[in-house]
Amino acid sequence: MIFRQLFEKTSSTYTYILADANTKDAIIIDPVIETVDRDFKVINDLGLKLKYAINTHVHADHVTGSGLLKQKIPGCKSVICDPNAKADIHINEGDKLNFGIKKIEFLSTPGHTNGCVSIVCHSAKSIFTGDALLIRGCGRTDFQQGNPGLLYDSIHTKVFTLPNDYIVFPAHDYTGQTNSSIGEEKKYNPRLSKSKEEFIQIMNNLNLPYPAQIDRALPANLVCGVQE
Amino acid sequence: MIFRQLFEKTSSTYTYILADANTKDAIIIDPVIETVDRDFKVINDLGLKLKYAINTHVHADHVTGSGLLKQKIPGCKSVICDPNAKADIHINEGDKLNFGIKKIEFLSTPGHTNGCVSIVCHSAKSIFTGDALLIRGCGRTDFQQGNPGLLYDSIHTKVFTLPNDYIVFPAHDYTGQTNSSIGEEKKYNPRLSKSKEEFIQIMNNLNLPYPAQIDRALPANLVCGVQE
Ligand SMILES: [Fe+2]
Ligand SMILES: [Fe+2]
Repeated sequence: MIFRQLFEKTSSTYTYILADANTKDAIIIDPVIETVDRDFKVINDLGLKLKYAINTHVHADHVTGSGLLKQKIPGCKSVICDPNAKADIHINEGDKLNFGIKKIEFLSTPGHTNGCVSIVCHSAKSIFTGDALLIRGCGRTDFQQGNPGLLYDSIHTKVFTLPNDYIVFPAHDYTGQTNSSIGEEKKYNPRLSKSKEEFIQIMNNLNLPYPAQIDRALPANLVCGVQE
Repeated sequence: MIFRQLFEKTSSTYTYILADANTKDAIIIDPVIETVDRDFKVINDLGLKLKYAINTHVHADHVTGSGLLKQKIPGCKSVICDPNAKADIHINEGDKLNFGIKKIEFLSTPGHTNGCVSIVCHSAKSIFTGDALLIRGCGRTDFQQGNPGLLYDSIHTKVFTLPNDYIVFPAHDYTGQTNSSIGEEKKYNPRLSKSKEEFIQIMNNLNLPYPAQIDRALPANLVCGVQE
């Protein structure tokens, strides 16, 4: 397996590239429009054939690079769960996608948004949690169909049922951490290690600022980041 | 093997934690003073016993966290190559250190500074290159005993003799990339894939700005970041 984790500083977003080392078939998870040239160069330098550009959800904090990557890489298909967002492939709970002999599986993990998915790659013992589960945190639930009770259930009944040694790769981190594990988050996540009632209480009292890029990002991300 | 890559945004520095998963004996490479609390929490959450806090060289762009980590973790020893810098252990070319059953080996790779080392962990097929080799770049050679010809030789006669699939983990990246490989850098590094003459020419004409933190960092880093 070829694996690259890439960081976009302005929105603190992690983009992931996974590829079958033999066939070079590849996927990218949560690309950012500002760093598409960098990601495209990595894909080319590694000789990869990008099959899928996947968004874990309709992001509110950055514009996706999936549309621009599709323009640069003929044959690449955009993938999302949210039925309101434009994409080549709409996936649902339990769906799988292949790249070479490698496989990813989608878990529906709503609560941050209705269309949030987490992506499991069993052969890499990894889960890409988008904005559902973050390292010692989680996605906010105060806009975009946010629902703290639903998020709590998504994480406890889906994400936390994976083995403790599975690596957690989130869509964001604001502290410079690059990954965590299921075991750690079950034990040390200051929000999700609490009861559901406490979690809802915490999430309803975060008083977070209005996201800097939301007015630009939401409409753009409903059409893969590129207006036609 | 337990492995964590951590990022400090202001100086774009990568800090690495490696540990034997069984004994929990651990090392940290290039900690930054501003993120010591974060790193200390990671070390504690993972139940690690930090044996060595290692600096790849006397950094000019950030203050090391090694002294502060030593204060927080009794028994932890600071490690550096540079004979002018204070540390518990001064290492040289070919020296090895153990943590649990895991082992790292030091390569002297001067040129960015005289005391620069790269750290090889064969069991992880990884090299931590400090500021010698960066992803598609290299450390500057215009101060701190910088010598482009020497840096070129260090990388070509030491670092680039490792297998192509060894992962390159640098002390910095300014583009959001987290790692590369020996094969990629041999092929695509825009400086080091050139001849030695061309490399020296490139390095002598970079016209880089004076490093923001150098006046604070250099004296502090000669005493593990902590004045006594
Ligand atoms: Fe989001
Ligand atoms: Fe340096």
